[in-house]
Amino acid sequence: MSLLEAELTWTGHAFERGIQVRLEGSRIAEVGHGLGSDPRRLDNRALLPGFVNAHSHAFQRGLRGLGETFPQRDGSFWSWREAMYELVDSMTPDMMYEISRHAFGEMLDCGMTTVGEFHYLHHDDSESGFIFDEVILDAARDAGIRIVLLMAYYNTGAIGQPLQGGQRRFRCASVDDYWRQMDRLERLVDGEQQRLGVVAHSIRAVPLNDLAALHAEAHRRGLVFHLHIEEQVAEIEQSIAAYGRTPMAALFDAITPDARLTGVHCTHTAPDDMHRFIDAGANICICPLTEANLGDGIADLPAMVEQGGHVCLGSDSNARISMLEEMRWLEYAQRLNLQKRGVCIDETGAIAPWLVAAATINGARSLGLDAGRIKPGMLADFCTVNLNDPSLAGADEESLAAAIICGARDTAIAETCVGGEWR
Amino acid sequence: MSLLEAELTWTGHAFERGIQVRLEGSRIAEVGHGLGSDPRRLDNRALLPGFVNAHSHAFQRGLRGLGETFPQRDGSFWSWREAMYELVDSMTPDMMYEISRHAFGEMLDCGMTTVGEFHYLHHDDSESGFIFDEVILDAARDAGIRIVLLMAYYNTGAIGQPLQGGQRRFRCASVDDYWRQMDRLERLVDGEQQRLGVVAHSIRAVPLNDLAALHAEAHRRGLVFHLHIEEQVAEIEQSIAAYGRTPMAALFDAITPDARLTGVHCTHTAPDDMHRFIDAGANICICPLTEANLGDGIADLPAMVEQGGHVCLGSDSNARISMLEEMRWLEYAQRLNLQKRGVCIDETGAIAPWLVAAATINGARSLGLDAGRIKPGMLADFCTVNLNDPSLAGADEESLAAAIICGARDTAIAETCVGGEWR
Repeated sequence: MSLLEAELTWTGHAFERGIQVRLEGSRIAEVGHGLGSDPRRLDNRALLPGFVNAHSHAFQRGLRGLGETFPQRDGSFWSWREAMYELVDSMTPDMMYEISRHAFGEMLDCGMTTVGEFHYLHHDDSESGFIFDEVILDAARDAGIRIVLLMAYYNTGAIGQPLQGGQRRFRCASVDDYWRQMDRLERLVDGEQQRLGVVAHSIRAVPLNDLAALHAEAHRRGLVFHLHIEEQVAEIEQSIAAYGRTPMAALFDAITPDARLTGVHCTHTAPDDMHRFIDAGANICICPLTEANLGDGIADLPAMVEQGGHVCLGSDSNARISMLEEMRWLEYAQRLNLQKRGVCIDETGAIAPWLVAAATINGARSLGLDAGRIKPGMLADFCTVNLNDPSLAGADEESLAAAIICGARDTAIAETCVGGEWR
Repeated sequence: MSLLEAELTWTGHAFERGIQVRLEGSRIAEVGHGLGSDPRRLDNRALLPGFVNAHSHAFQRGLRGLGETFPQRDGSFWSWREAMYELVDSMTPDMMYEISRHAFGEMLDCGMTTVGEFHYLHHDDSESGFIFDEVILDAARDAGIRIVLLMAYYNTGAIGQPLQGGQRRFRCASVDDYWRQMDRLERLVDGEQQRLGVVAHSIRAVPLNDLAALHAEAHRRGLVFHLHIEEQVAEIEQSIAAYGRTPMAALFDAITPDARLTGVHCTHTAPDDMHRFIDAGANICICPLTEANLGDGIADLPAMVEQGGHVCLGSDSNARISMLEEMRWLEYAQRLNLQKRGVCIDETGAIAPWLVAAATINGARSLGLDAGRIKPGMLADFCTVNLNDPSLAGADEESLAAAIICGARDTAIAETCVGGEWR
């Protein structure tokens, strides 16, 4: 049992002084003023919920700085995908462990206490055995980050096409095979620091029947369900060519969306489809740094904000790992595109509470975790901000949240705490 | 006299090993292999030219985190401008010194060794006397940054309109008055660590006759000439209403552009005008973080790159100070907009050399300095990158430059050196 008091504490809408937080084990037991007379004081610190990184492919950290030369001057998402497959082809268990553990460490450094690891690279060069799944769990445990292993089902190279080359390392032979592996993993995770979620990689990689079967079983088990959807125009074109409808329309025909569903990207989703998706309570995960690096395009965020959509954030390709920059550029990409300031705003018109919610509460919702806010019953996951960091000089209680988002460097994040354990 | 050898040294196109750099006083005397047997070794460091921040308004650092709430839901550039005027109204010499010195310190922290300080807030509440000009020079000297004080002429509140409210603190009564102050400043600067440049604030704030007169005298004195131009659509509309032509067309009628001219922003410049501007050898300064924060829009960079335009970078409003993020998002904003990767590329198709040039050589060109490259005769201005920073783990000699731009955190910048003096 322990009692904390930071100089400032984020209450969900603002920073407040004098707030104490009592922990019991790995959870928050009580939050309020004057809970005890001898708290552990976090001076010069602002206490925030730990950031929730709702979408990561840890192994892609190995691509940082690669694939940034375009001799053919036709740089596209698909050329990057080829570079990624080269890395996939060379991956060994040791490499997978080192790269993932390092990526998870960088996530903690920048305040992320949970990662939703969207994991589709299952096999080494034997192309079977799911050896990398356990490696990821080990790497997360050793790094000290909370993980929801979002186990990806990957079955086709493109719609109706066999897997090719490196893709065979992603292979799930059948839905039954997938659940056998999930059952094996279920025995390895503790259900709190480590949990499982279900993934259909994309409409490209998963036949619609399989998608429906996966989702039905995920629903029965009470697990969250994620998929990549409508990131690239080509993906939509391929779906229309094969199925006569968009990936989102095909998804609606296969499953009933609900609050446990997360669509990753939704960059090019049609307005009506987006409306229906949000109306069902489903989550949208946007990955600003990766979508920019890959040249995906800019999602229709104003419509999502207007409708009260649950938007969360992911570091995705991990070409750069910074939740502050993800928050900032979620808003900034919209400003550039619309020539308008203040897109991601709450009911008062403020950007900071909306963007902090995207980085915390909404990520936790997408991953099915009691986390992302400093409230009794929630997991004791925090990050702290060093109020003496030069990048925050001049900020007061009121401007601090926006100063952190717009102006702070990554190292203004001082400490993280996962399940009551400070790092 | 001193001899340096970093583990890696940037040669303008790539990082190379074993390069030694001999300094004499504040300049680089010699660069090559095997210049001496006992160099000062910079282990685990990559040596780069110091970054050149070609456009800053240091005092706007005081606005960080402010103006990010939009209760009317009509957030625009012009509402930010009002917030800026509030700061202007309250500015004292002490505040000006503290804010500017702090901003210059943050610039050095992130590898900027020179600032082009586009300085238009001249007066305290007495609304005359140019008291802030000397304050800026003091702040830069005390922070240890090289400065080109880009002295701004500001005469009208809008085209043909008198100055209003806080704008009176920007006032230059006449062109003669301006040059009297420039002569005074000329005696305060040493011509190397501190220099002067000439600025017409914008078409909004400077009558065209005055602009022509300022430019003629700047040309006679061999000084660089900067102006804000075509950042906002409203500015272009006002120019067309008043002059029957765009700001750029009005500029061409008033002066002959050359390599000493820098247009800051050019966000909405018409293709023909842009072509003529670049053809004359003039420089374009883009400020990605500020233009994003202000919702300015996205310049037509592909045309600039194609034509070989000299594009440099500025931290402008200093809402955030990070040359790495400016470089990264110069390219990324284009990728989002065009759904294409690899816009800012050199002749080999690589983004890193092009973007490093924007942050170094091109900034130095815009400010008229012998800086921005590690070559004999250049100013001995450097920044170093810590090769052990976690954000650079896994990068090799070849991928390092792109890894720094796409993936490094600010604190991967380890040291700076201005005119041979290490900080």
